[in-house]
Amino acid sequence: MLTFHHCPQTRSSSVRWLLEELGVDYTVERVDLRAEGGVPDAYRAVQPHKKVPAIIHDGVTVTERSAITIYLCDAFPEAGLAPAIGDPRRGPYLSWLAYSDAVMDPNIAARFNKWQYDARTVSFGTFEDMLAHVERTLAAHDYVTGDTFTAADVQVGSLLNWTVRVFKLVPESPAIGAYLDRLQAREAFQRAQALDAA
Amino acid sequence: MLTFHHCPQTRSSSVRWLLEELGVDYTVERVDLRAEGGVPDAYRAVQPHKKVPAIIHDGVTVTERSAITIYLCDAFPEAGLAPAIGDPRRGPYLSWLAYSDAVMDPNIAARFNKWQYDARTVSFGTFEDMLAHVERTLAAHDYVTGDTFTAADVQVGSLLNWTVRVFKLVPESPAIGAYLDRLQAREAFQRAQALDAA
Repeated sequence: MLTFHHCPQTRSSSVRWLLEELGVDYTVERVDLRAEGGVPDAYRAVQPHKKVPAIIHDGVTVTERSAITIYLCDAFPEAGLAPAIGDPRRGPYLSWLAYSDAVMDPNIAARFNKWQYDARTVSFGTFEDMLAHVERTLAAHDYVTGDTFTAADVQVGSLLNWTVRVFKLVPESPAIGAYLDRLQAREAFQRAQALDAA
Repeated sequence: MLTFHHCPQTRSSSVRWLLEELGVDYTVERVDLRAEGGVPDAYRAVQPHKKVPAIIHDGVTVTERSAITIYLCDAFPEAGLAPAIGDPRRGPYLSWLAYSDAVMDPNIAARFNKWQYDARTVSFGTFEDMLAHVERTLAAHDYVTGDTFTAADVQVGSLLNWTVRVFKLVPESPAIGAYLDRLQAREAFQRAQALDAA
């Protein structure tokens, strides 16, 4: 039993894409973030900030995109979306997932909100270092952990899509453009998009 | 072979505490964040923002505290610091680790830097919701995932220590105070503190 708490066209869309990549059955519980009066307070028992995404799998609640990704890919290893424990690619896989949530997303928010700050006071550092890291990685390989697609690409690719195609915070570089095209050509991405639009 | 890139009295101290909890052998590579001229650029090959912590284990580099925690506790399961894949506590364990990096730390930075923002534009939401979630959790259990200490408490406890005891962003509540006392009474915490001071 897998329930997905979701609001289309928000950050939780990356988890819908992940679920389509996994090819598992799931039920969508729509959370209307734009509802008059806001999200009912009872939802805090699922997600403490009344945000999306959240999943409930066999009675276990998991929140935060990186945690959901790690949890689901380990629960459904037959999908082959994550290096197993002991595989040397597990290190970069976990690092990129943590990085997407803890460094990329706050840097996008900081740039979007035009915050001025001393980068030494924040764990997420600077937008420029983040973009340089992405560029260096994609110059060397087709996917963030190497030459194979993993679930880390779903999260990193979703955030880069917000950065260069939705918010247009910086111009789209050739490497990021090619990476996004490669990811968005995937059937699971297109299925997720169509389901969100419907 | 385990190398720990570390600067004492910074965010990487929580990983030193974790390494002491694990009871494994490791070598410290000191990264002098306060050095004149900054950290050498060559260090970017280890940590893309020239920050700490980073670990290199059998040639595999892992960055971001939550990723390092998940990686190490799975690599050394005999330490018993993490619920295994399939254990229902794995869900809250992963969620709290992602939450510490992606929600707690940016909220501390936002409060520290006095940023004003619409909470709907940022993934990490509000400091108030974060504190309420911590309080609700610690009112119900001694540790964030339930009645047993896990490596998630190392990261959450370290951030709460910065929040209420170092930066004093809010007064220390009885529940948070008791939690920090419980954690800081641990031998591994005290060993890590002594090593950092030396």
